[in-house]
Amino acid sequence: MTTNIQITLSEERKEKPQPEQLEFGRIFTDHMFVMDYSPQKGWHDARIEPFEPITLSPASMVFHYGQTVFEGLKAYRTSDDKVLLFRPEKNMERLNLSNERLCIPEIDGEFVIEALKKLVSIDKEWIPTTEGTSLYIRPFIIPTEYYLGVAPSKFYKLMIILSPVGSYYKEGIHPVKIFVENQYVRAVDGGTGKAKTGGNYASSLKAQEEAAKKGYSQVLWLDGIEKKYVEEVGSMNIFFKINGEVVTPEINGSILEGVTRNSIIQMLKYWNIPVKEKRISMEEVYDAYKEGVLEEAFGTGTAAVISPIGEFYYKEEKMIINKGQTGDVSKKLYDTLTGIQKGTEEDVFGWVTEVK
Amino acid sequence: MTTNIQITLSEERKEKPQPEQLEFGRIFTDHMFVMDYSPQKGWHDARIEPFEPITLSPASMVFHYGQTVFEGLKAYRTSDDKVLLFRPEKNMERLNLSNERLCIPEIDGEFVIEALKKLVSIDKEWIPTTEGTSLYIRPFIIPTEYYLGVAPSKFYKLMIILSPVGSYYKEGIHPVKIFVENQYVRAVDGGTGKAKTGGNYASSLKAQEEAAKKGYSQVLWLDGIEKKYVEEVGSMNIFFKINGEVVTPEINGSILEGVTRNSIIQMLKYWNIPVKEKRISMEEVYDAYKEGVLEEAFGTGTAAVISPIGEFYYKEEKMIINKGQTGDVSKKLYDTLTGIQKGTEEDVFGWVTEVK
Ligand SMILES: Cc1ncc(COP(=O)(O)O)c(C=O)c1O
Ligand SMILES: Cc1ncc(COP(=O)(O)O)c(C=O)c1O
Repeated sequence: MTTNIQITLSEERKEKPQPEQLEFGRIFTDHMFVMDYSPQKGWHDARIEPFEPITLSPASMVFHYGQTVFEGLKAYRTSDDKVLLFRPEKNMERLNLSNERLCIPEIDGEFVIEALKKLVSIDKEWIPTTEGTSLYIRPFIIPTEYYLGVAPSKFYKLMIILSPVGSYYKEGIHPVKIFVENQYVRAVDGGTGKAKTGGNYASSLKAQEEAAKKGYSQVLWLDGIEKKYVEEVGSMNIFFKINGEVVTPEINGSILEGVTRNSIIQMLKYWNIPVKEKRISMEEVYDAYKEGVLEEAFGTGTAAVISPIGEFYYKEEKMIINKGQTGDVSKKLYDTLTGIQKGTEEDVFGWVTEVK
Repeated sequence: MTTNIQITLSEERKEKPQPEQLEFGRIFTDHMFVMDYSPQKGWHDARIEPFEPITLSPASMVFHYGQTVFEGLKAYRTSDDKVLLFRPEKNMERLNLSNERLCIPEIDGEFVIEALKKLVSIDKEWIPTTEGTSLYIRPFIIPTEYYLGVAPSKFYKLMIILSPVGSYYKEGIHPVKIFVENQYVRAVDGGTGKAKTGGNYASSLKAQEEAAKKGYSQVLWLDGIEKKYVEEVGSMNIFFKINGEVVTPEINGSILEGVTRNSIIQMLKYWNIPVKEKRISMEEVYDAYKEGVLEEAFGTGTAAVISPIGEFYYKEEKMIINKGQTGDVSKKLYDTLTGIQKGTEEDVFGWVTEVK
């Protein structure tokens, strides 16, 4: 395993964006982390370099067979200028789970966290501080062998790039409208749904595009077998509050196990709010709605943290939830979780790691 | 639509490989075709250039969200030095079908065929002529926008690269052993199975790897819903000859519609050999085997053309087909189809296009 990181600092520093100009994932910092894999050397040549284009043969496998994995997490800058990461070890665990499914060699999670911390500390000045902003961290692995055969690549590149990002919703936390997808399928058990790999997102674009035309911002995926059970939303897991109990689809082999999802479950338990992971049919949710006991619904994910859902479109009907307003539990979860992440709330779970 | 192709010839010519050294997809010719897409200009800047690496930001969408499509076809050089393409218009049709599913802008198939012919004619000397060899043509499209959001890219690159390839099986046509997959899933209806996109191949690697460990060269996919109905093999469609009748799974939304598959069906009809496209359960195939009426099985695809199947591993049992030998129909199809492709058999179907 590599233990040494070669650092080459950029001679120029780019201009940093104004906080109010920040979008998601459009601007990148001055440096990036790169590490290569070969069968002979394993993961090697770990280095931090100026952020710059990479050069690959058009025959590189990444352009042909989609053997890619990635992660997404955030760094936050506190009012007293500390830099905090939120549960990076969970992302490394999941990266290795994705690697395993995609036949990509395992990484040393602890080492990659060290690299990531080093990189974030070098580009620390890029971390915005205004409400709702953060530094998005994108580790990803691409296959680089020059070969057109369908087989796992022999060579890979792991890279980490950083992007200062604005508040996911410009006006703060704000309910979204979701289209319940009944034609396209995201994943099935035995497929790649539980891995964070490019193909899952590529296959989701079409449904997303069609939902957007109808005025919905994301789709809710149902299971690929019976199109009956709730799975997840675009890039978020989903929760419902029904009659005082919070429920979320259980981990079933086809949904992505979100770090936010896991954190939310722990927080609810800590607050003694009933929470259950189980198989949930969309009919069940609809019935609860009709009976007037579907109290809240929200998505959870690194990008938006908590995204309250104000409306579902299901079987030609608009289900309006909590009068289209953010529910109390959603709000409390959002405030507490973002508070822990930003260092303004006590970190009772030990989730936050400081970047020195 | 672009109508003009800018040509820049390479100043150096690489050394061509000896025919006996040829593998699949490892060596590339002197030139490539490139064309860009932007919302303002559509597909534009069509050009033939020296084959060389491409330079992309690490934030390019191709490294993150798998929004890629590709095609594969071959050019053959005849004994009287003509260059022939096999049904390129079918590949362009399928490329647009893949584009549609992946939210990639449509291409002008006729124009891309012109470009492809021009490119092949420039690198004509690279086309090997010995038995079983050909020039593999790989058109592919990648998303190039620098953006980490999950949305269709606004910018793309279409490229065509060429690779002289050897006989798929070094010893000529030769039966393979196939593992019937009962755990992993390739695709379901509503997913991307009918499109030629990277993610489908990435998701197949794990099953492939596990089958290889057990001594099987490829896997036979069953449907993702019931794991009961036959779909296709790695990168081939599949046919069975049962009691004198040839059957192949019908197009169902989850299998790739192979150009070879389509050609085989037409050839069988022309010969008055009974052929049917239908839903086929693996149990049905197994029963036919037990009754002694499973006479032949073979895969079909551009790379291997016809690949006879000598054995299936299914439910802990080895099903040996036709004593592990190539069947008569498989052989006749292989000889006739490769003959048409190489110009030694009469092209009664009008499948072959000459590159002038
Ligand atoms: C498909 C999918 N589901 C769920 C999530 C939420 O996961 P996390 O909370 O770890 O960000 C994400 C985003 O990362 C995702 O892409
Ligand atoms: C998944 C899959 N099925 C079937 C085929 C066969 O298609 P074709 O005959 O057009 O090569 C291919 C190869 O291209 C493939 O990748």
